[in-house]
Amino acid sequence: MDIQAFLELCVGRWFSQRSSYQFDSQKAESHKSELTVEWLENTDSLFIALCQEYRIDPNQVIGGQKVSWNSSLDFSKQKQIGTATMIVIPDENTPETGKIIQSFQSQPSKQGNYSLGRDEALTLSLEKGDFWLEERVWFASPNLRLRTSLMKGQNGYSRTAFYSEIRRMAPEEAA
Amino acid sequence: MDIQAFLELCVGRWFSQRSSYQFDSQKAESHKSELTVEWLENTDSLFIALCQEYRIDPNQVIGGQKVSWNSSLDFSKQKQIGTATMIVIPDENTPETGKIIQSFQSQPSKQGNYSLGRDEALTLSLEKGDFWLEERVWFASPNLRLRTSLMKGQNGYSRTAFYSEIRRMAPEEAA
Repeated sequence: MDIQAFLELCVGRWFSQRSSYQFDSQKAESHKSELTVEWLENTDSLFIALCQEYRIDPNQVIGGQKVSWNSSLDFSKQKQIGTATMIVIPDENTPETGKIIQSFQSQPSKQGNYSLGRDEALTLSLEKGDFWLEERVWFASPNLRLRTSLMKGQNGYSRTAFYSEIRRMAPEEAA
Repeated sequence: MDIQAFLELCVGRWFSQRSSYQFDSQKAESHKSELTVEWLENTDSLFIALCQEYRIDPNQVIGGQKVSWNSSLDFSKQKQIGTATMIVIPDENTPETGKIIQSFQSQPSKQGNYSLGRDEALTLSLEKGDFWLEERVWFASPNLRLRTSLMKGQNGYSRTAFYSEIRRMAPEEAA
């Protein structure tokens, strides 16, 4: 599976179960959310804006993703809704590695790196202000995506999370 | 990092925070445990017994591990104590992949495979009766180990778990 195929497999609606752990307070929590991953066309205004901001030739970019989440189905927790956008720029001769640019709601966009391993796990790393974030994503099957994130601050590791994500089928697909 | 170095880095005492998720019941749980990983010498009786059972030349085996866990520190949950033993047999020309044999308490031992990726994540896969188990282990730092496991039964995926494991230091090391 190459990076393009990997990103395409992410597209869809997912039921996401997150378990997070705070290192300082030793507090573990779990959350449910609905996640929608859309393919970002290179005609999309955000795609064009990110390319312009980072002076990137849109032809170098294989595409992007818009990820939206909504935790309404988790009645016991405070509702969380948000959107993040990412575009992916493979290295010219080694497309299994490259750059990513991520835009998260109204925050300034950030640049990072990706690497798709032989084991078909995608590792994303990003610096966000004083934080460094590493995310690892892989597919147990086309309809089961697993994902971990690890956040490091100036005082060491602060938070880790694990996501089990099951693809939601349209009724006609699931039948 | 090669497989030998990876296994050696696992040795020690760990505080393990587990988050698990059952697919059928959609039940999320979290547990704390203390984990002790010991290097298994090739003079160990269990090491010798596993080599004999699988007719493996002990010289092909790079070593083994004995993993013990104890959840006594998690007062709110039923106490869990156990031990598993694993020996590792690298493929002759590609030592980043190979076989593993795992012995879990009084259950029959099982044979499986390992693969150490370019991203320094170790993937272990094992068949346990009607279950198939995949475990993925990697180090965020020498003292922070992350681990996921995924279990599949005849009716599809049944359970996934994520472990954040912090190395416990002896007082003189931590000082």
